[in-house]
Amino acid sequence: MSERRTITPTHRYRNNDKLIGIGNTFWNLSEEHGVAGIVGDLHDGVFRMADGHEFVNFTVCSYLDLDTHPRVIDGAVAALRRFGVLDHCIPRTRVQTTVLLELEESLGELFGATVVSAISTAAASTGLLPLMASGHLGNGTRPLMVFDKNAHVSMANAKPSCADETEVVTCRHHDLDFLADMCRRYERVCYVVDGSDSLGGYAPVEELAELQDRYDLLVFYDDSHSLSAYGERGIGYVRTHSPVLDERTITVATLSKGFGAGGTAILLDGYPQQTRRIIERFAGPLGYSQKMNAAAVGAAMASAEIHRTDELVELQGRLRSNIALFDSLLATEQSGSTYPIRVVPMTDETVVEAAQRVFAAGFYVSPVFFPIVARGTAGLRVMLRAGQTGEQIRRLASVLVEAGAQPAGPVAR
Amino acid sequence: MSERRTITPTHRYRNNDKLIGIGNTFWNLSEEHGVAGIVGDLHDGVFRMADGHEFVNFTVCSYLDLDTHPRVIDGAVAALRRFGVLDHCIPRTRVQTTVLLELEESLGELFGATVVSAISTAAASTGLLPLMASGHLGNGTRPLMVFDKNAHVSMANAKPSCADETEVVTCRHHDLDFLADMCRRYERVCYVVDGSDSLGGYAPVEELAELQDRYDLLVFYDDSHSLSAYGERGIGYVRTHSPVLDERTITVATLSKGFGAGGTAILLDGYPQQTRRIIERFAGPLGYSQKMNAAAVGAAMASAEIHRTDELVELQGRLRSNIALFDSLLATEQSGSTYPIRVVPMTDETVVEAAQRVFAAGFYVSPVFFPIVARGTAGLRVMLRAGQTGEQIRRLASVLVEAGAQPAGPVAR
Repeated sequence: MSERRTITPTHRYRNNDKLIGIGNTFWNLSEEHGVAGIVGDLHDGVFRMADGHEFVNFTVCSYLDLDTHPRVIDGAVAALRRFGVLDHCIPRTRVQTTVLLELEESLGELFGATVVSAISTAAASTGLLPLMASGHLGNGTRPLMVFDKNAHVSMANAKPSCADETEVVTCRHHDLDFLADMCRRYERVCYVVDGSDSLGGYAPVEELAELQDRYDLLVFYDDSHSLSAYGERGIGYVRTHSPVLDERTITVATLSKGFGAGGTAILLDGYPQQTRRIIERFAGPLGYSQKMNAAAVGAAMASAEIHRTDELVELQGRLRSNIALFDSLLATEQSGSTYPIRVVPMTDETVVEAAQRVFAAGFYVSPVFFPIVARGTAGLRVMLRAGQTGEQIRRLASVLVEAGAQPAGPVAR
Repeated sequence: MSERRTITPTHRYRNNDKLIGIGNTFWNLSEEHGVAGIVGDLHDGVFRMADGHEFVNFTVCSYLDLDTHPRVIDGAVAALRRFGVLDHCIPRTRVQTTVLLELEESLGELFGATVVSAISTAAASTGLLPLMASGHLGNGTRPLMVFDKNAHVSMANAKPSCADETEVVTCRHHDLDFLADMCRRYERVCYVVDGSDSLGGYAPVEELAELQDRYDLLVFYDDSHSLSAYGERGIGYVRTHSPVLDERTITVATLSKGFGAGGTAILLDGYPQQTRRIIERFAGPLGYSQKMNAAAVGAAMASAEIHRTDELVELQGRLRSNIALFDSLLATEQSGSTYPIRVVPMTDETVVEAAQRVFAAGFYVSPVFFPIVARGTAGLRVMLRAGQTGEQIRRLASVLVEAGAQPAGPVAR
């Protein structure tokens, strides 16, 4: 049987050998050191493990702690009772109850956009990007798809599908010159990028708007990390700062991080009703797979109501205070930013041990490493939230310094 | 600017122009005739539209009506109250509560398999198939990926990603000869197919098992349409009939159709714990996106309990009776099968009008058409459920005959 064919892969856009080869080693190392694969019961913001160890999780994306807000949970329960079914199992393009339509109307009003819901941001990006590649979402012209090198894997994984509908390239992080050059060379260009990065930082939305105005550049943003946490009524970074809120800007943003519910919102402007139908019918999983269930919808409706009140302003203020407190204690590259994520620099050699030490002291901060970040830029990822106490933040900072982190400024500590 | 480049797509594995060009025409036609884009309130199994029209939906995949079972809804509410959060927003590979682990243990016991959960079957297939293509899920050998021509679009859409990791071909429906030939020519082959088709019919699992034994063929089944509805404890068609329940058979099955909850179950046998970690970390959306939320988990736990009782046997029995009743009234290609789906043949010219007529009489049955089915095989899709009454089925059959369907046998009606 030795004559049977073996296969050589193309590995144009993905490479599991490489991804898993490097990634799995680090995951295994993390798990062996007890800083991954952690299981516990969560009560009142404190995790308790089977062995009795207790810790506060500083790597949760619920920036405003709305996910545990009693009104949000009550909203989920109320929707279950009202609709009496989690998901009426038939594509909504055929028959639907009002559950998703009510949510989309509420979110549309809240964010000043046309909103289409999806079960997750991954499902939304998986479905939308190939439609943009083929020009069906856009202006009909098949664009060159330029993926930012750092675009989250939920977007990057759509490259092979997009590449069957158009040309696909990857550019350096926020490389505006390259984009301008491509805009001059191609009839149309679509740039795929995080509006707010999972490792801290925002997209250059104003500079991109200039390219959008000049060259009709289409931009696909994933703004999941700034929704709720940033802007009036939690509108997020992109919609706060981009002057181009029309058919040239398409944004997806999860309802499961700052928003505290589940599912995702696709935010559109300037598209006709017909485009909405194209999305519902042909945007991959949106057309054939599960939808946001009634509990997630009920939670999101309740969270939307909170977004309309002063409570949101208060929560955003507490988050900002916590960020400022952290920055007053520790030096990071993100210091001074409104962004709720900080990466405390460590070396590839020390990062896991440092995480272990911090964990033993009662805090979980996740070690990040290749392939999540480039080699040599390892660190401990800290996510600030509105609900953390000043005491928790001070204690964490003190433990981080003991583990090798650099204190802030000359008079820190 | 006329010198700017336009792009010619490769269209190796997908073609939005073709899909949307043909598909959208039919969808628009369906919606114009009021047999798509339907919105209503659902109470006690009856839809009521804004204009007062009432109808029973005969195209819902909740074959045992567990989705509206009071214990299932109560289970969802109980889990929300117990965990106090829909989803703790951090990859489970880092920190998790017991919510998913308890579900996976329960389902593992119920189905006699190792179970990994995912938010949807689309997410599971999107994540697993590229891992199989690269040999990381399997035996390490990069297989030729053979997609059945009729494989559901949630699987077919993974072709471009798989093609970057190995070779991909599409074969005719259930073409065992082709598979055997490929097994002789390639070191390893992986066949991707529905265990239970969305248009009625099962995979030839016993014949495939022979190829699995002879050539080490790897088979990926989506058995979503038979879970709960078929087999002891609702184990589904594949696990009831396949003698090869080891690492050569990987099955995904939704928990949102017959099971009545939400999310999906990946059913594995014979793989070490390490493979489970590979899946959790590297199977696309499973590693970075949303998980089944607590409400879906609670509903699934309650449904699993029902699966352990005689109530499941009773519900399966009622479903079988309803199928038999329908078959006694109407002739379809599926007649006599245990399968809960029937496609009542119509021509491409008559199918929408027939659906319209049936809808006016108080029943929704969905017209199916290219690209969902091959050209010239249009029909009205009827899904039988345990909860339908004999009277509803008789009335539907009578209306279908008036709309041009063929009565069963010589003495029908």
